[in-house]
Amino acid sequence: MARPAPLSGFPEWLPAERIVENHVLDTVREVFELHGFAGIETRAVEPVEQLLSKGETSKEIYLLSRLQASEDARSDKQLGLHFDLTVPFARYVVENAGKLTFPFKRYQIQKVWRGERPQDGRFREFVQADIDVVGQGSLPYHFEVELPLIMAEALGRLSEIGLPPVKVLVNNRKVAEGFYRGLGLDAVEETLRAVDKLDKIGPSAVATAIQQDAGATDAQARACLDLAAISGSDAAVLDDVLALAQRTGVSHPLLDEGIAELRSLLVAAARRAPGTIVADMKIARGLDYYTGSVYETVLVGHEELGSICSGGRYDTLASDGKQSYPGVGLSIGVTRVVSRLLSANLTSATRSVPTAVLVAVLDEAHRESSDVVAEQLRARGISAETSPDAAKFGKQIRYADRRGIPFVWFPAGSDADGNSTRHQVKDIRSGEQVDAEPAAWSPPPADLRPGVLPAVQD
Amino acid sequence: MARPAPLSGFPEWLPAERIVENHVLDTVREVFELHGFAGIETRAVEPVEQLLSKGETSKEIYLLSRLQASEDARSDKQLGLHFDLTVPFARYVVENAGKLTFPFKRYQIQKVWRGERPQDGRFREFVQADIDVVGQGSLPYHFEVELPLIMAEALGRLSEIGLPPVKVLVNNRKVAEGFYRGLGLDAVEETLRAVDKLDKIGPSAVATAIQQDAGATDAQARACLDLAAISGSDAAVLDDVLALAQRTGVSHPLLDEGIAELRSLLVAAARRAPGTIVADMKIARGLDYYTGSVYETVLVGHEELGSICSGGRYDTLASDGKQSYPGVGLSIGVTRVVSRLLSANLTSATRSVPTAVLVAVLDEAHRESSDVVAEQLRARGISAETSPDAAKFGKQIRYADRRGIPFVWFPAGSDADGNSTRHQVKDIRSGEQVDAEPAAWSPPPADLRPGVLPAVQD
Repeated sequence: MARPAPLSGFPEWLPAERIVENHVLDTVREVFELHGFAGIETRAVEPVEQLLSKGETSKEIYLLSRLQASEDARSDKQLGLHFDLTVPFARYVVENAGKLTFPFKRYQIQKVWRGERPQDGRFREFVQADIDVVGQGSLPYHFEVELPLIMAEALGRLSEIGLPPVKVLVNNRKVAEGFYRGLGLDAVEETLRAVDKLDKIGPSAVATAIQQDAGATDAQARACLDLAAISGSDAAVLDDVLALAQRTGVSHPLLDEGIAELRSLLVAAARRAPGTIVADMKIARGLDYYTGSVYETVLVGHEELGSICSGGRYDTLASDGKQSYPGVGLSIGVTRVVSRLLSANLTSATRSVPTAVLVAVLDEAHRESSDVVAEQLRARGISAETSPDAAKFGKQIRYADRRGIPFVWFPAGSDADGNSTRHQVKDIRSGEQVDAEPAAWSPPPADLRPGVLPAVQD
Repeated sequence: MARPAPLSGFPEWLPAERIVENHVLDTVREVFELHGFAGIETRAVEPVEQLLSKGETSKEIYLLSRLQASEDARSDKQLGLHFDLTVPFARYVVENAGKLTFPFKRYQIQKVWRGERPQDGRFREFVQADIDVVGQGSLPYHFEVELPLIMAEALGRLSEIGLPPVKVLVNNRKVAEGFYRGLGLDAVEETLRAVDKLDKIGPSAVATAIQQDAGATDAQARACLDLAAISGSDAAVLDDVLALAQRTGVSHPLLDEGIAELRSLLVAAARRAPGTIVADMKIARGLDYYTGSVYETVLVGHEELGSICSGGRYDTLASDGKQSYPGVGLSIGVTRVVSRLLSANLTSATRSVPTAVLVAVLDEAHRESSDVVAEQLRARGISAETSPDAAKFGKQIRYADRRGIPFVWFPAGSDADGNSTRHQVKDIRSGEQVDAEPAAWSPPPADLRPGVLPAVQD
């Protein structure tokens, strides 16, 4: 084949980059499991009518067809690749409701596909890492407090490998809806959609949109913008909202409920993740199924990348007709995070292979004795491989060096004069070479596996 | 939504089943990394012409189209979902050759898709776990010895969770081709394709096929069947091949080369995995790109399931015109293995959630003190969750019981008479309840994570 070119929007990593991605995946999985979330995977495909039933993402769906569909295949349902993990999860919950225990807490780490135009941080194939809690019939509010804190903990752990701090921006649809209705504005969806564009089109265009699409007066539109301008990381921000409501004569039970919910989130966040959670009244989220808390997350210093972890509370995503399954969840855009870690040189792996020790081969007739050394090391959890060929030792050391393998092992044998020699292991970084026993020697813990470290900034 | 039905051929696991699958995936990944294989992932899609260029699998490909393809999309390449991990890996190697070091050893664990008719053990979406070694220009034979032994080690480790023993069946295309050519039969592909059907259609139909498709005489066809009938797990089997060659007057340098290669594999296997590797002269593999060793693997007692780990040596899969990239690799059919572990009740998980401790909540006003206990446990690597509600303790214990969570924690507080109480933890299996400190107590190691154990057979 001719040298193939990459496909735009379908990122692939080199081995050392994949070590960074795996570290991110292992870290978030560990945090999710520490919090009691069970891992599931759903199939990559859903019937298209299932995918189309949710929101405005239909244009992004990849449809499937079989290259040589036969008669029996014509009756197959039209399938598409899932574009997120929330819609398949909702289907999984309804399909398996009789076999699950509620509230059901699950994490799910999988690829998703969207036929969007690729941009920086926006891909056609990418990995998401989701957590959701779903109840049967009802779901207590406290999960809306816990879940963003779990995501803040998972992303916070990645500071060890160079991820900048995150800010989780939270809002509550009840605050916005209660405020709009208290103002006399009942076109809530239209108003939220306009406010959601604030960062893109600016306040005066948003005001115009609220007036045109939601039928607001100039004063109502200004009040909506005033609300959207409120943000802050402690409960005092809610006093700003209350003051605005008083000034504009707004009062609505939904507003009170939303403020009480936001307050308990901010109080818990002040203890568990001080400074990480920011109440931001302009966060509205594009999708229309959120009914309570909504979340977006920015990387400090990389805000232009967009949200790296979003979600919210949904009361109506899943239902089987008899029973509703309200839930709350967030989704990390793993590929967006990893691509930024790599492209901005924030993080790197200490080597491109898991191997800690290359066992040298004197000549092909002695390959087995080298294999035995490697087996003894592996039996104690030390990644080891036998040299691919019996080239001169200098060449075998260069093999290790090119991959970042820190140690080369020289098996016991006999030298050119027929004198027996002992096992020796060489740290090829320092050049230090010492006697060692294959059944006892271990590398320093830091060399056992590839490290993933913050890159040294110039 | 109405209760959705599963899609045939697209398996999904319940949480406790997914714990079994994750254990299998973690185990094989650990073995691959111990042997120095670097993990990569390729995108799920390839240009269709790339997928079509290899063998006879074209009919099984799923093509992609965008639901609302716009003008700019018309010029996009036609994409399809990959049907294995070998073809994408070959493309990855050629695409990134300048950034990789050779021989390049990689593992790859991903889903693949085939539009085949679903059957027991045969799916439309399934997970494969592959290892391959690829050289630039050349690749030493010893990798053809090492790779099946690594797979035997990975699958052998799964005996801990109830996987039956495996037999890796090996053959060498050079033996068959050398023997056929020595017989005067130059239609090697046709003969191999006929022999490959031996188990399905029986010897007399194979003999007829060899005569019709490969133009063989009756005597030649019988000799091919005699060769295919030879199998055994030690090097003595090669004496049978040599005796057959002598009896039928066959001599060919390729036959000698193949026998020498097989011999060194069987000698190494006798030391490293006695009884696991079986030379079987009827293994031919459907795909036409293998040029040396070929491998299939059966689960002892479940032979009708078909091969659970197959592969071989390929000299010509990847090339960029200037350079060839010969390789050898095997692929575990993870979904086939896991579905059998589950459907035959060979294995089960001890619980359906990672949680080791449920921290009870006295009342909602005291939720925070329960959260603090859970945080202290998690800080020491113990999976803990706070009870979703402040129901009666009996109900909270049933919450734990239904999920298999072994311990329930009762935080310090005060009882109904206002006397202060100490932290206590209850093993809900034995009923034993003891005082404990959140900063010091740990569960027994066996309870720390969900266990994956061989099921007790009746």
